[in-house]
Amino acid sequence: MSSQHHRDPDRLLPADPRTRDVARALYERVAAAPIISPHGHVPVDWLANDTPFADPASLLVSHDHYVTRLLHAAGVDLASLGVGGEAADPRRVWMALAEHWHLFAGTASGYWLEEELSQVLQLDEPMHPASADRIYDEIAAKLTTPAFRPRALFRSFGIEVLATTDDPLDDLHDHELLRQSDLRGRVIPTFRPDRYLDPDAAGFAGHLERLLAATGQPGTFEGYLAALESRREHFIRHGAVSADHGVEEAYTLDLGSAEAQRLFQVIAAGEGDADDRRAFRGHMLLQMARMSVDDGLVMTIHAGVLRNHNTATYERFGPDSGHDLPVPTDFVRGLRPLLERFGLERDFHLVLFSVDETTHSREIAPLAGFYPSVFIGAPWWFLDAPDAISRFRSAVTETAGFFRGSGFIDDTRAFLSIPARHDTARRADAAFLARLVVEGRVSAASAEQIIDVLVGPLPKRVFKL
Amino acid sequence: MSSQHHRDPDRLLPADPRTRDVARALYERVAAAPIISPHGHVPVDWLANDTPFADPASLLVSHDHYVTRLLHAAGVDLASLGVGGEAADPRRVWMALAEHWHLFAGTASGYWLEEELSQVLQLDEPMHPASADRIYDEIAAKLTTPAFRPRALFRSFGIEVLATTDDPLDDLHDHELLRQSDLRGRVIPTFRPDRYLDPDAAGFAGHLERLLAATGQPGTFEGYLAALESRREHFIRHGAVSADHGVEEAYTLDLGSAEAQRLFQVIAAGEGDADDRRAFRGHMLLQMARMSVDDGLVMTIHAGVLRNHNTATYERFGPDSGHDLPVPTDFVRGLRPLLERFGLERDFHLVLFSVDETTHSREIAPLAGFYPSVFIGAPWWFLDAPDAISRFRSAVTETAGFFRGSGFIDDTRAFLSIPARHDTARRADAAFLARLVVEGRVSAASAEQIIDVLVGPLPKRVFKL
Amino acid sequence: MSSQHHRDPDRLLPADPRTRDVARALYERVAAAPIISPHGHVPVDWLANDTPFADPASLLVSHDHYVTRLLHAAGVDLASLGVGGEAADPRRVWMALAEHWHLFAGTASGYWLEEELSQVLQLDEPMHPASADRIYDEIAAKLTTPAFRPRALFRSFGIEVLATTDDPLDDLHDHELLRQSDLRGRVIPTFRPDRYLDPDAAGFAGHLERLLAATGQPGTFEGYLAALESRREHFIRHGAVSADHGVEEAYTLDLGSAEAQRLFQVIAAGEGDADDRRAFRGHMLLQMARMSVDDGLVMTIHAGVLRNHNTATYERFGPDSGHDLPVPTDFVRGLRPLLERFGLERDFHLVLFSVDETTHSREIAPLAGFYPSVFIGAPWWFLDAPDAISRFRSAVTETAGFFRGSGFIDDTRAFLSIPARHDTARRADAAFLARLVVEGRVSAASAEQIIDVLVGPLPKRVFKL
Repeated sequence: MSSQHHRDPDRLLPADPRTRDVARALYERVAAAPIISPHGHVPVDWLANDTPFADPASLLVSHDHYVTRLLHAAGVDLASLGVGGEAADPRRVWMALAEHWHLFAGTASGYWLEEELSQVLQLDEPMHPASADRIYDEIAAKLTTPAFRPRALFRSFGIEVLATTDDPLDDLHDHELLRQSDLRGRVIPTFRPDRYLDPDAAGFAGHLERLLAATGQPGTFEGYLAALESRREHFIRHGAVSADHGVEEAYTLDLGSAEAQRLFQVIAAGEGDADDRRAFRGHMLLQMARMSVDDGLVMTIHAGVLRNHNTATYERFGPDSGHDLPVPTDFVRGLRPLLERFGLERDFHLVLFSVDETTHSREIAPLAGFYPSVFIGAPWWFLDAPDAISRFRSAVTETAGFFRGSGFIDDTRAFLSIPARHDTARRADAAFLARLVVEGRVSAASAEQIIDVLVGPLPKRVFKL
Repeated sequence: MSSQHHRDPDRLLPADPRTRDVARALYERVAAAPIISPHGHVPVDWLANDTPFADPASLLVSHDHYVTRLLHAAGVDLASLGVGGEAADPRRVWMALAEHWHLFAGTASGYWLEEELSQVLQLDEPMHPASADRIYDEIAAKLTTPAFRPRALFRSFGIEVLATTDDPLDDLHDHELLRQSDLRGRVIPTFRPDRYLDPDAAGFAGHLERLLAATGQPGTFEGYLAALESRREHFIRHGAVSADHGVEEAYTLDLGSAEAQRLFQVIAAGEGDADDRRAFRGHMLLQMARMSVDDGLVMTIHAGVLRNHNTATYERFGPDSGHDLPVPTDFVRGLRPLLERFGLERDFHLVLFSVDETTHSREIAPLAGFYPSVFIGAPWWFLDAPDAISRFRSAVTETAGFFRGSGFIDDTRAFLSIPARHDTARRADAAFLARLVVEGRVSAASAEQIIDVLVGPLPKRVFKL
Repeated sequence: MSSQHHRDPDRLLPADPRTRDVARALYERVAAAPIISPHGHVPVDWLANDTPFADPASLLVSHDHYVTRLLHAAGVDLASLGVGGEAADPRRVWMALAEHWHLFAGTASGYWLEEELSQVLQLDEPMHPASADRIYDEIAAKLTTPAFRPRALFRSFGIEVLATTDDPLDDLHDHELLRQSDLRGRVIPTFRPDRYLDPDAAGFAGHLERLLAATGQPGTFEGYLAALESRREHFIRHGAVSADHGVEEAYTLDLGSAEAQRLFQVIAAGEGDADDRRAFRGHMLLQMARMSVDDGLVMTIHAGVLRNHNTATYERFGPDSGHDLPVPTDFVRGLRPLLERFGLERDFHLVLFSVDETTHSREIAPLAGFYPSVFIGAPWWFLDAPDAISRFRSAVTETAGFFRGSGFIDDTRAFLSIPARHDTARRADAAFLARLVVEGRVSAASAEQIIDVLVGPLPKRVFKL
């Protein structure tokens, strides 16, 4: 970490002076552009209720599993950090962060925390155990002021669109409130049906039952599909533009209608074996594509994550407690049934996100360079950091150019990190483009056009905004 | 793309001034060296007949699936681009390219198109919709002149050797004509038997029948092997130096003679199941190695591509219509049976090409750093671009040095792009070597020797030219 | 290779002048720091007996399979190089190296050989066939002097800790001798039980029998476990801090006690099939973790290597003759049973080494960024070279920072290369850190602290030294 919060205005730009000059000029074009955030996890009630943030620790530490996982790796108990709703003294949580501050040097999380402290919270004092209490007090005081309430920050961040991620049965009342509020900028829901599609999801049977009950549909495959379709319609009426799918493998299967109905009955009865459950997941991912073709919701797939690797931690702290881990997955073979059916549909948009960076040059860029429906999701999760973004650009650009990508996606629950994350992507893209300019591969004028498109027009087009 | 066709003489060289100076000096040593192209897909009849190219669109767009696939991804119908022999108005094809010109910025294809327009076709005007017709006319006019006929370009490109890729039953008459012509430089055929070895290839049964009929061999495994051997002999008599194998997986199997005969009868009768067909392919790849040991043809394997991912597109536009896609494959385990049998044979040359760049550091460089028979194929297909070449060099050099590689392979059907592709590789290699010089890892004198070897002596040795 | 042995003092540092200045200053802080080598393969008897090295060839060529494998790939017979104990004329071995010297340009081995000749052996003359005999004589003369005997070199290298790798039944007498000697610096054994755990290991039945006999344990699973535990105790009494496990796949399995006992009887009787043998290996790797939790030995896993790829070479030259090859392996799923049981144990240290660099960003850094027990092993084997180290740092740092790593591990049998390898890592780390400083991501003060920790405190903490 930096020893102080003073930030180098050229941070993340390339070392070579000529390249840095080009990069700086490109970055400055877009540094203040509005933020388009078409996928993320900010709790909508923060904005709907506009209640002040409780304290520095819960805001910056306890709910950011990027931060808590690294503290946990250093030996800090998750309970003492307030993870999973455990009661924890926020001052002690904050002190734990200060005591381990040096561990974050070079990490994406550390970079964003520095940005949040210096750029958003406007702090001068370096973080260390001796200053931690003073910094805590200073932040806590700011959080009580109007300028640091969620909606005020939303405005000051320059957010034009912010998508949340929501349960299909959510009534979206908070989104409705926000739509009628004076908030400049849209806050839109995203349909995320995993738990209703995956027989291995915790509580699947109950979710299925509630879905059918809520929509008044019968317990047949047709009823189940109609129930999902009706909830998608509900989301669309409330401004949703996309449906998101988090899966361990990018696996799809195109079953005939009779076979799908039979399989649904087996699954609904809780009698399917592992092969049945996989087939069901695969077929339902294909059905989701079919619905996207029908209703126009952009389909996003986040594939290749094994959730809840450590059972003891999961049982105590619940999901998203820091041990979701990447695994290899095969997009080319796994998505073939889906793409055979829908890959050439004109208004179908399918955005592929991967935490296995080998898939960027091998699978995702080649797919997006042929199928008009396929877009390259921004580098995700463990890969949304400066070096990883640079590797991503290098991996996909020579095959697919700049315009088959999704634009940057922050995908975060850490509200205060949103400006830092988009700024990181803008700097990283400026750095990459500057190198191409200096290497005579892209003209300066083209580079300017490209970076302008990347921060706004591209994500708006891909996400139908 | 550059906003104009003026090309930076230092293009693709590193930004750091001192490194760039070293790189420039290295590049200049080999910039004008003759082109050795030991594997590619230029149609031999272009050269044999020396007929003028029909028009700019068919020359630069319709037959270059790198270009058409990215236009297709942008929503352009392949039929309207003249893909797969569809009738298309060349001016409209050309206009489609101009309208989507910006999409190629940063891509390998875009870079080569710029090179072809500026360096080969000597055009000054930037490409955009308003200039497209004028540029079309200018190119069309040039294509009618003697200087732009295929053989004249072949000479002006400085090609010393050009290998085509040919069906085993080809009579190679065109190659014979060329051998007797006044063409300086060799045009040699390459034996490519995939469709006669893979029971899953379209029309396999017919191909098998024709192979046996053409060679007068009986329908036994011995007859089948003898038929292949006799066609290889035919190719060798016509100057072939290599046999090429395109496979979805680098899988080999060493069956006993009786088992192989039995399996052949099953396959020939069209009765094999998926396991049988895989076993047959695996054993035949090993048999091809055995024949290479016997007759001296260099064996090249292009592995890890799933062909014709989209059935609807394949059925309408045929093979090579832009949706062949990389998949992971395992060279170390898959080629073990082959290498156990033939890996230590002295005059056996096996060149491994991969579109999965993770295999470069993990599998191919380690194999080539032990087996005298194994050579590292140049980065292939989606990887034959400046950044990918740089990653490739970084991935293989520390393990295997510079002399276990194949030298650059353009592998292209886009005849006009050949100089640009070789120039790209020379610049990328100069850039890589210059970094090693500046980092004190390779002396300037060694770097000079290496780049001299890379462009000529190395591919000549590997391909027995 | 450099054309002469003069070494650039800035070698391996970045080209950009400002970055180089920062890197040089960081490097100079640690250039002379003591060497901590917690895992490697130097034969302990060299140090215990302190006998002069026999000759230049056996010291620098015959026993370094990095070097001999590349000569073999160039067509040199392994027998003529003295591999596997074959009688070979050391002058002719040395001449073979000189004749192929240029092949090592750009390789890690070439870099280290240059370092050994210039820095350790203080030679001025460039290596080539005409100078080879003179250089041989000069080295041979030096090797007879006191300054070049093993213990003197150990001292002059500044080694503080050197771990060897030893058979569980080794009496560790040589280590005992060294402990009582005047050697400054510790030479400690490492428990490496692969051949006693893997039913597919050559001679497994005999090894098992000897293990039980040596420890007086009965042929039950309990007896077998007790035998292993007692040998670990023996190692701990002789200073061992870690147990090392070389496996083809990172696969673990948590069997119940009864099932494990049953499986042991099947395996001990030589009756297990491939599934049984895999299950046994997987369960025993988990048992090794259990023992590490109990007795405190750090557990290191070197996964993803298929040993002895070429049977003919193995049969003639034995193991470690240059054809051990990387294969993909799955750390996240494969180690899950182990980590479910022991991943949260406070004093358990598990260091993961991979030769598949894709696992660094996808699996190992994410694991080490959550589990307090998991540490990221230094880039190993084919990856312990400057570019590979740079890719490694880029792949893991943004997720896990600098302090979840093991520190540099040389893992070498090439005694004279130890200083060069550690120096390479220090320079590569300085280069990486300098870039982060210049990019405004890490403060200069943090970078200084980090590089200080990397070379000493970090490996000491991870390996409980």
